[in-house]
Amino acid sequence: MNLNLTPGAEGLRAQLFHIIFESDTPGAKAFDIALIGAILLSVAVILLGSIEIYAERYGPIFFYIEWALTILFSLELLVRIYCLERPLLYLKSFYGIVDLIAILPTWLVLLVPGAHGLVIVRLLRVLRIFRILRLMEFVGEASLLLDALKRSLRQILLFFSAIFMVVTLFAALMYTIESPEAGFTSIPMSMYWAIVSMTTVGYGDIVPATALGKAITMILMLLGYSIIAVPTGVFSAQVIRSIREDRYSEEACPGCGHDRHDKKARYCLRCGTWLDEDSEDPRKKDENQDASSD
Amino acid sequence: MNLNLTPGAEGLRAQLFHIIFESDTPGAKAFDIALIGAILLSVAVILLGSIEIYAERYGPIFFYIEWALTILFSLELLVRIYCLERPLLYLKSFYGIVDLIAILPTWLVLLVPGAHGLVIVRLLRVLRIFRILRLMEFVGEASLLLDALKRSLRQILLFFSAIFMVVTLFAALMYTIESPEAGFTSIPMSMYWAIVSMTTVGYGDIVPATALGKAITMILMLLGYSIIAVPTGVFSAQVIRSIREDRYSEEACPGCGHDRHDKKARYCLRCGTWLDEDSEDPRKKDENQDASSD
Amino acid sequence: MNLNLTPGAEGLRAQLFHIIFESDTPGAKAFDIALIGAILLSVAVILLGSIEIYAERYGPIFFYIEWALTILFSLELLVRIYCLERPLLYLKSFYGIVDLIAILPTWLVLLVPGAHGLVIVRLLRVLRIFRILRLMEFVGEASLLLDALKRSLRQILLFFSAIFMVVTLFAALMYTIESPEAGFTSIPMSMYWAIVSMTTVGYGDIVPATALGKAITMILMLLGYSIIAVPTGVFSAQVIRSIREDRYSEEACPGCGHDRHDKKARYCLRCGTWLDEDSEDPRKKDENQDASSD
Amino acid sequence: MNLNLTPGAEGLRAQLFHIIFESDTPGAKAFDIALIGAILLSVAVILLGSIEIYAERYGPIFFYIEWALTILFSLELLVRIYCLERPLLYLKSFYGIVDLIAILPTWLVLLVPGAHGLVIVRLLRVLRIFRILRLMEFVGEASLLLDALKRSLRQILLFFSAIFMVVTLFAALMYTIESPEAGFTSIPMSMYWAIVSMTTVGYGDIVPATALGKAITMILMLLGYSIIAVPTGVFSAQVIRSIREDRYSEEACPGCGHDRHDKKARYCLRCGTWLDEDSEDPRKKDENQDASSD
Repeated sequence: MNLNLTPGAEGLRAQLFHIIFESDTPGAKAFDIALIGAILLSVAVILLGSIEIYAERYGPIFFYIEWALTILFSLELLVRIYCLERPLLYLKSFYGIVDLIAILPTWLVLLVPGAHGLVIVRLLRVLRIFRILRLMEFVGEASLLLDALKRSLRQILLFFSAIFMVVTLFAALMYTIESPEAGFTSIPMSMYWAIVSMTTVGYGDIVPATALGKAITMILMLLGYSIIAVPTGVFSAQVIRSIREDRYSEEACPGCGHDRHDKKARYCLRCGTWLDEDSEDPRKKDENQDASSD
Repeated sequence: MNLNLTPGAEGLRAQLFHIIFESDTPGAKAFDIALIGAILLSVAVILLGSIEIYAERYGPIFFYIEWALTILFSLELLVRIYCLERPLLYLKSFYGIVDLIAILPTWLVLLVPGAHGLVIVRLLRVLRIFRILRLMEFVGEASLLLDALKRSLRQILLFFSAIFMVVTLFAALMYTIESPEAGFTSIPMSMYWAIVSMTTVGYGDIVPATALGKAITMILMLLGYSIIAVPTGVFSAQVIRSIREDRYSEEACPGCGHDRHDKKARYCLRCGTWLDEDSEDPRKKDENQDASSD
Repeated sequence: MNLNLTPGAEGLRAQLFHIIFESDTPGAKAFDIALIGAILLSVAVILLGSIEIYAERYGPIFFYIEWALTILFSLELLVRIYCLERPLLYLKSFYGIVDLIAILPTWLVLLVPGAHGLVIVRLLRVLRIFRILRLMEFVGEASLLLDALKRSLRQILLFFSAIFMVVTLFAALMYTIESPEAGFTSIPMSMYWAIVSMTTVGYGDIVPATALGKAITMILMLLGYSIIAVPTGVFSAQVIRSIREDRYSEEACPGCGHDRHDKKARYCLRCGTWLDEDSEDPRKKDENQDASSD
Repeated sequence: MNLNLTPGAEGLRAQLFHIIFESDTPGAKAFDIALIGAILLSVAVILLGSIEIYAERYGPIFFYIEWALTILFSLELLVRIYCLERPLLYLKSFYGIVDLIAILPTWLVLLVPGAHGLVIVRLLRVLRIFRILRLMEFVGEASLLLDALKRSLRQILLFFSAIFMVVTLFAALMYTIESPEAGFTSIPMSMYWAIVSMTTVGYGDIVPATALGKAITMILMLLGYSIIAVPTGVFSAQVIRSIREDRYSEEACPGCGHDRHDKKARYCLRCGTWLDEDSEDPRKKDENQDASSD
């Protein structure tokens, strides 16, 4: 982000950019903390506002806080757009869309009154927490997890395909064995029961009534109980791999070809060859100096 | 699969074989996607057809879709048989049996009317998803998981034997402590409760009523909660091992026979022999040049 | 087990010993399979006999099977004792005690009639499955798991101490917040609820009623949901270590000190030194022969 | 802890210090065991005292035991303070605060009668179990687990942030779909349901009633069922790393400073320098002998 720091408007834009998009100056940090507070307050108001007793008692207060925060978030978005050189690109990005979603529902109520269903859209504001996490430098941890997730994605997809097949077959089996009175009124309903049982949630709203149904349920529960080892095992292995590879540089030693050096390594662990090909080995300098001084 | 591409009928067979059994040409890919769509539609129709309201309203539509898909799957199977040189061998294979199971129940209804119970057999169609997974090149991931499962099979069998013993003993104990009013009417019923509790499903349909029963339940729940670490640990270890071994090439060193080289390795880790037999060792070139330049 | 195979009684004893305690001859294998069948039949009879309808209908059949099997197991135990040189040592061992427990309850009924409560003791017969597992050569797998369990025992004990403290504190907290009407009638009852919640069993027989109680429950459930990672992680790490160490011999190379050689290794992986100190390196022999032949 | 062992009062203080704060003499061990017994008895009395039937029947006994133990714990704390040189520093430490909390509530009842709510504060006594664990030398295991927890802390925090977002969004979604009759009376109540479902607890007190609600619940349950692999994988990886690093000695090579040597290593893996500074390098001896023999 090479910004020309010209005086006047340009200087203001650059300064605002530093405060809003970065977090290395005291002003930027104060802004971040204020933003975190505003987001959490906003989420809390929505949550409490959905409880009838609180809505009746503190309704007007919630209303004013909501509008105050919406105006604040709108101003923030305007400033963000103002200090970026390509504001449209930002509005199309993930963070830009989340920023828009955070304020649009409240403004829409002015035009379309009584839009109660939009409460859920407003709660998409929690996604702004991602920005906070980025500010708190959780990026390294997140990328490690995403890296491991990406590597195990295909195995996890395979796992869910297998789950889908098992659930469908057990659901069809239970649908023919159990009566609709026990809750197995259709195959999709049986699938709901099968997932409730296999994931070990076990609400107990639908429960097998016959002896045969109970026997099959036991098999399904043991399957669900032990099959969890599959994604856990795959993911564990990938996290271990990601952590290990993160510690090593990917370049091989020009001397012996050993390719698992610590990222900070200057000499090859195995043969002592100088690894940084762009600069000269300080040992050689010493030798040259020794030679010339002789 | 060396097929002689002769003109006429033979050429047609070879072409059909490519389209149906492989997935590397545009025609073959289009066929695969159509097949995936047909299988998922067929499963959806069976699922929705089991819901009474939908069955009443859209019954005839479901009936026609079911027959259209059954005729399509039958034609597909006939073409498969036609373009294979040993069709009986295919019909005896896993995929052949699944293909037959996918169409037979619907045809059987013509002969044995009102065979409602066959609905479950029809749902075995979901197993055809395995074929889709194969087409989507999930083979590598599946073989990795199967490899790890095979390695941990004996430990997992041992784990289930231990679970069976624990469940039987706790069930017998609870059967003597708790009264039939609480649901513990027999030892098999107690075993059902023990599995529901140990796998952390916890329906709540059978629940201990006495203080002693509750104390024993606490031990069983803590056991089930922590014992899951056993299959998870074993499977994790085996996945890690399988992934690690996947990193090594399977070719042995021509010098010393060492067969666990990194796939990128050019020289043997143990004896330094040049591993790539198709090209010349650059070291030799250097030596030759050195020799000729002298 | 060096047994002198003398003719007559001694020869019979040795033969019986081979059949009963080992599993490498056809006769021994037939005996093993018969024993497995008898144990499973015996357990099945006890399980089915506890179901009232079956007990009424097939009561006498169960009675005769039970007695037939008890007499068979008694004969088996007598033969075991007969062909061992130190029978008392066997009766005091784990397997001996299980063998006694398997037959004593049925015999005791002759002396103490109507001993219904002994049904649980009879089910200790399932522990005889351990013997079957040993016969099926599951020993290696079991010792691997036990090895990993032993290594992680102290961490697991620590884990359960932490669980106990968390459960006690949350139980006391919920006891003061929730009313007895919701089921929190005493601290031990609250502890039962806390374990049901923390182990993710969730029967639903005791459930928080107040808003504050629900908030605390959320924390407890998230704690239980994520804390399972602790024993799983510890056990995974120990299994990986056990598998790895099982593959390597523990002796170091006399040449370079490298101490992670494959158990089958004859030469050091790193420096090529002959590892078996009890015999001579075949390469040296070759050299000596070469030298002498020159 | 350099204590001058002078005769008289000072000698008594030193002796008491050894008995109370250490555990390597017979007297100290006897004290530890007595302390463990007293703590467990004290916890048991509080637990049983909360059960109405027991409280009525054995109330006075519990009262006397409670007071006896409180006086004992008070004396113990006084002795602890007496034999320490900086008692205030101890009272401000974690163990000091727990010791105070263990006795203060009972004494407070004398001043503020009928302080029933203080029962929970008294149960903080279970935290004294930490001291027992320390005495039983569980420190190594605890530090290993804490080390792994510290390393995975940021990833676990990230995991809980993601859980919070998923729970909030699913709760808002279900609040708009499901009716208040099914229990989804507010968004916080929906969040309680979402956590109950996602952690696979599944009480069954709030359950989806509509088909769409059930479909969303299935997704949430599968998410919760498989997402547990994330903290487990991260923690497993960190435990493996902690164990591995425990295998290395912490001393650096005097030659090159490399500090990850196997605890059994005698020569530096990197530069071959002799690591044991207390004895002489056997290679040097050989050289000297070679030199002298020439």
